[in-house]
Amino acid sequence: MKKFMDENFMLDSDEAQQLYHEHAAKMPIIDYHCHLIPQQIAENHQFRGITEAWLGGDHYKWRAMRANGVTEDYITGDKSDWEKFEKWAYTVPYTMRNPLYHWVHLELQKIFGIDTLLKPETAKEIYDATNEKFAQPEYRAQGLMQKFNVEVVCTTDDPIDDLRYHKQIQNNPFGTKVLPTWRPDKAMAIENPAAWNEYIGKLEAVSGKSIGSYADLLDALKIRHDFFAEMGCKLSDHGLETFYQVDYIDAEIEAIFAKVRGGKEVTPAELEKYRSAMLYDFAVLDHEKNWTQQFHVGAIRNNNTRMFERLGPDTGYDAIHDERCAAAGNKLLNRLAYADKLAKTILYNLNPGDNEVLMTMAYNFNDGSEAGKMQFGSGWWFLDQEVGMTNQMNALSVLGLLSRFVGMLTDSRSFLSYPRHEYFRRILCNLLGEDIKKGKLPASEMAFIGQMVEDISYNNAKRFFEF
Amino acid sequence: MKKFMDENFMLDSDEAQQLYHEHAAKMPIIDYHCHLIPQQIAENHQFRGITEAWLGGDHYKWRAMRANGVTEDYITGDKSDWEKFEKWAYTVPYTMRNPLYHWVHLELQKIFGIDTLLKPETAKEIYDATNEKFAQPEYRAQGLMQKFNVEVVCTTDDPIDDLRYHKQIQNNPFGTKVLPTWRPDKAMAIENPAAWNEYIGKLEAVSGKSIGSYADLLDALKIRHDFFAEMGCKLSDHGLETFYQVDYIDAEIEAIFAKVRGGKEVTPAELEKYRSAMLYDFAVLDHEKNWTQQFHVGAIRNNNTRMFERLGPDTGYDAIHDERCAAAGNKLLNRLAYADKLAKTILYNLNPGDNEVLMTMAYNFNDGSEAGKMQFGSGWWFLDQEVGMTNQMNALSVLGLLSRFVGMLTDSRSFLSYPRHEYFRRILCNLLGEDIKKGKLPASEMAFIGQMVEDISYNNAKRFFEF
Amino acid sequence: MKKFMDENFMLDSDEAQQLYHEHAAKMPIIDYHCHLIPQQIAENHQFRGITEAWLGGDHYKWRAMRANGVTEDYITGDKSDWEKFEKWAYTVPYTMRNPLYHWVHLELQKIFGIDTLLKPETAKEIYDATNEKFAQPEYRAQGLMQKFNVEVVCTTDDPIDDLRYHKQIQNNPFGTKVLPTWRPDKAMAIENPAAWNEYIGKLEAVSGKSIGSYADLLDALKIRHDFFAEMGCKLSDHGLETFYQVDYIDAEIEAIFAKVRGGKEVTPAELEKYRSAMLYDFAVLDHEKNWTQQFHVGAIRNNNTRMFERLGPDTGYDAIHDERCAAAGNKLLNRLAYADKLAKTILYNLNPGDNEVLMTMAYNFNDGSEAGKMQFGSGWWFLDQEVGMTNQMNALSVLGLLSRFVGMLTDSRSFLSYPRHEYFRRILCNLLGEDIKKGKLPASEMAFIGQMVEDISYNNAKRFFEF
Repeated sequence: MKKFMDENFMLDSDEAQQLYHEHAAKMPIIDYHCHLIPQQIAENHQFRGITEAWLGGDHYKWRAMRANGVTEDYITGDKSDWEKFEKWAYTVPYTMRNPLYHWVHLELQKIFGIDTLLKPETAKEIYDATNEKFAQPEYRAQGLMQKFNVEVVCTTDDPIDDLRYHKQIQNNPFGTKVLPTWRPDKAMAIENPAAWNEYIGKLEAVSGKSIGSYADLLDALKIRHDFFAEMGCKLSDHGLETFYQVDYIDAEIEAIFAKVRGGKEVTPAELEKYRSAMLYDFAVLDHEKNWTQQFHVGAIRNNNTRMFERLGPDTGYDAIHDERCAAAGNKLLNRLAYADKLAKTILYNLNPGDNEVLMTMAYNFNDGSEAGKMQFGSGWWFLDQEVGMTNQMNALSVLGLLSRFVGMLTDSRSFLSYPRHEYFRRILCNLLGEDIKKGKLPASEMAFIGQMVEDISYNNAKRFFEF
Repeated sequence: MKKFMDENFMLDSDEAQQLYHEHAAKMPIIDYHCHLIPQQIAENHQFRGITEAWLGGDHYKWRAMRANGVTEDYITGDKSDWEKFEKWAYTVPYTMRNPLYHWVHLELQKIFGIDTLLKPETAKEIYDATNEKFAQPEYRAQGLMQKFNVEVVCTTDDPIDDLRYHKQIQNNPFGTKVLPTWRPDKAMAIENPAAWNEYIGKLEAVSGKSIGSYADLLDALKIRHDFFAEMGCKLSDHGLETFYQVDYIDAEIEAIFAKVRGGKEVTPAELEKYRSAMLYDFAVLDHEKNWTQQFHVGAIRNNNTRMFERLGPDTGYDAIHDERCAAAGNKLLNRLAYADKLAKTILYNLNPGDNEVLMTMAYNFNDGSEAGKMQFGSGWWFLDQEVGMTNQMNALSVLGLLSRFVGMLTDSRSFLSYPRHEYFRRILCNLLGEDIKKGKLPASEMAFIGQMVEDISYNNAKRFFEF
Repeated sequence: MKKFMDENFMLDSDEAQQLYHEHAAKMPIIDYHCHLIPQQIAENHQFRGITEAWLGGDHYKWRAMRANGVTEDYITGDKSDWEKFEKWAYTVPYTMRNPLYHWVHLELQKIFGIDTLLKPETAKEIYDATNEKFAQPEYRAQGLMQKFNVEVVCTTDDPIDDLRYHKQIQNNPFGTKVLPTWRPDKAMAIENPAAWNEYIGKLEAVSGKSIGSYADLLDALKIRHDFFAEMGCKLSDHGLETFYQVDYIDAEIEAIFAKVRGGKEVTPAELEKYRSAMLYDFAVLDHEKNWTQQFHVGAIRNNNTRMFERLGPDTGYDAIHDERCAAAGNKLLNRLAYADKLAKTILYNLNPGDNEVLMTMAYNFNDGSEAGKMQFGSGWWFLDQEVGMTNQMNALSVLGLLSRFVGMLTDSRSFLSYPRHEYFRRILCNLLGEDIKKGKLPASEMAFIGQMVEDISYNNAKRFFEF
């Protein structure tokens, strides 16, 4: 019996342990996709305490608490920090086998040096011990990033964002490079004409460009895209229910634009044409800049209207979708490849049943221009745990080249989530170690395999994104 | 090498063995969803012998025999009990790696005390030994339920059922509580106007309510729903190809009702609207009574018309469907949650590819009112085996709270199937034991984990359904 | 730690080793579905060297090289054999965990007696050593088949093929029976009227039948079907995106035929009706001859138009599709079963998410006429690797009878791919051995299980296809 979460946690063979301790552990972190708030980085945010840091915006924990019979006042309501933490501590033992149970204890261990298990009996002790730490500089936002040797972080930003906090960080460097990511989902969201027109108004203001046509919209977005590039942006990102790519002609898109710009609702067919056009046109911009485009497909969001009206989006009411994606996804990438405008690309799926579909889709478009040009992205959101990561890496391995994988990202809103890179690396090393132990990979190639671990942990991303 | 099906069957670690023997084995059984025939319970049915008990209605075994080249006369035809049993004995070795191979031998072992493997050479000996037992009182219907410490059983019943046998059982209690379950699928089945109108006629008779409109239908169903509640019913159940929830207005539903009540066929769009309305209205009734509603989605039934015409439904010609369910399922539950009419709910899927979709769907609607309000149900039908149960529990674990799971049910037509609860509990303990052994769960929390095993085996269901 | 690919490669228990070495290894190979070129067999093709043999048409390797940053001139272009091989050798270590890494070294070991790992440092040595061998008779096409004890091979042939090379082989037997397979996909491909009409013209010529109606087309195909039967054909095969089976009447099909025969494009609805009719009518022919029909569903092909225009089909730009298949598949088989015209059938899926759908679909139509009449086929193409095969055999096991499985086929274009049968058998034995070791199968039944291994490796196919 192994001790819980000891130094060889998740490393079930000598080979895995060697790979992790000699190769993975030492590599810096490149967190090329996350949802940290730039202002908090720029201002080197000091946390009020563990309740803010852990429970402030973490819908994973919120879902667990709701499922455990905790009422909303203790989750997003006005109960005190201690009362909320106590409910969380009560919930933690009930999360056994959920990744939260590992994350909580990994974060306690790696960030706070606490080996005690969190449960009602230990709640006060841990609450006090952690809260005390947040007064120290190394527990402020920048300190936490330094503690984990985070070399690069890419936040997620709207085209209308003025990136003032990114500027502030660039003017006051602290050791971690912080770059914006272009996430233009709102420009595509014509299903709500009022909200969209309000957004377009802001885009006009920030771009200095009047937007009376789809062509104008592209011009305005191009202005912002150029600005993001100046600010060091290297990636774009799209959150999609599925891929969109139906045939259209420019005049149709202009007509749809005019309709929605005039405040009218569009039909489902018009919506799909419009999305098809925007996805293509965004991709062309990314290719011109040699950025990497990311597609996150397969979430069905805001399913609980009662709670949406109360709490807004990203509050724990999203789920896995089951729309088909093969035909449209391949068609979009094909159209880009045919025009020689296909940027480096990462495809992420939320439905684990799409692993093989997206993986084989991506590999239709490698063209030899660069090793690993088309990437099947790391287990995302609901799949960001041992089973999900293992399945993602197995699909990538048997249908492609694991060796060329750009690896892990946190996708997180939290400054405490960097131990997830460790979690990922342990799983990676365990898969490889198990194969060596069983004679499925040659032990004689340990040097190559160790290099592969270092590449997937750090070097591949470093080279791929050109940080 | 472990002995076949010894006391530590499926328990691959010391930790798993401890959890099973000290915590799981002793718990009573709550079989909250099954298809036992109430009359057989009420009349304490005595079986003619093992052929009736095992092969009388078990389409799992029938499918295996057909696949093994056994002709229908030996399966559902007029061959003698011995001849049928002999063909089954011939088939059993060919089922190795199928759950039937385990179930058969677990039932021989646990029910009849027979350790001999069933195969042609042992067929006569086992046939005689088991048949002899059925003459004894403890091998009659009630005796078998008592033997396995079955505390509660919920049968599956139509709203027009007079529940006379449930009354008879309640008047002559024998130690196992037997409750009806509300399964109103036939009221929704307007795709066949003739059969549906015949059914509505029976509903009129039993409810004493003339049914000339959809509103009348709801009234009549409400009368029966009240009656089921009086009879101790705590659960409803729906067998669906997928979820249905398109927008509709009441007048449309009344028009569709009038059309089909007049004997006319409806269009696919009308069918979907009607189903959407019924699903919602049924759910509202369940919420009023504080029942638990169950949705079984993803079967495609009666695919072999030649055999359907000969044998009817539930005879081994059903399969796994691949309709999408995320959008409609979330929409149905959302509409109920918004109206504050969402009952406790269990979602079961037949397509294993829907595990994560249904699991995350369910958890969109936990509201803190009760621990485990929204349940992702145990591996069902084709998934009611080691791989299926393991995947279901892994999905539940990594995307939610395994600890709050209401656990196993047989879904069975057989009085011999209670060892499947043992089978389930062994798999559960093995998963937890393996995690402890590997350092993924803390051994120091063995008491909590043991309690979790007892809860999932029994306490959670007891509390959740309020038996 | 086990040595890489030693004699007990993939055999993780004593039981597995016993099953493999005593039962599996000795059985001849029946490769009942492949894409070998009959001319190369007939003419006992001598390979120019390892580059032709390995890289000549292997789109698995091409995809890996493209993903590894190798440009097209080194893959399908005009670089020299050595230059291409060097790029492949550079790529091989990067394929670790991909089945290519195993296949390459299994082929080096079993075909060439080379234990050296292929990598840049060993490329020249292996290039020279293998190229030398191809001068020897046992490394010509027929010699390779004999070396691996291949008893039967079924190629894949178009109805218009004159099968001259099959005749030549039959007139000059060499120890391996070589039979044609009926693959009439082009007759169904009316989505491209010009190409289809050209094809129909060729069919007229070879059948001696003028084709002015759909009925004529069926007559012409029947003439060819009879000819294939005379030539020893026992199987048909269909490559489909998904199943098709919508209702139609004969007059509609004739009208669609007339339209496309006249060079006009058809609507999607017409296309689906036409495909529905053809699939049914082909199946009827197969049933009359007592052939086995194969359906390969779930590929989305030729996704990269730029490369399709340059290289044509089957060059590494195909992927896994996600069309639904349950309703149409069951409907097609049901219609055939109802008419008592359902031939022996094998269903193969490319999307692993369809495993359980196709498996349960197949088993709806077993009728006891023959053990294993309806087969769920071996892991195919992207699934032809350890994870894929394991999942296929697990789905088959838990939902049906593994014991009646007709087993492995290479589906390959290469004469070097026979070690894949060994790969499959090792995985099979490992699954069974693991179950025995863990007490899930009885060690006392080792003789029966050994027989099962021999059956799945060889006997079942021999009996099933009536070779």
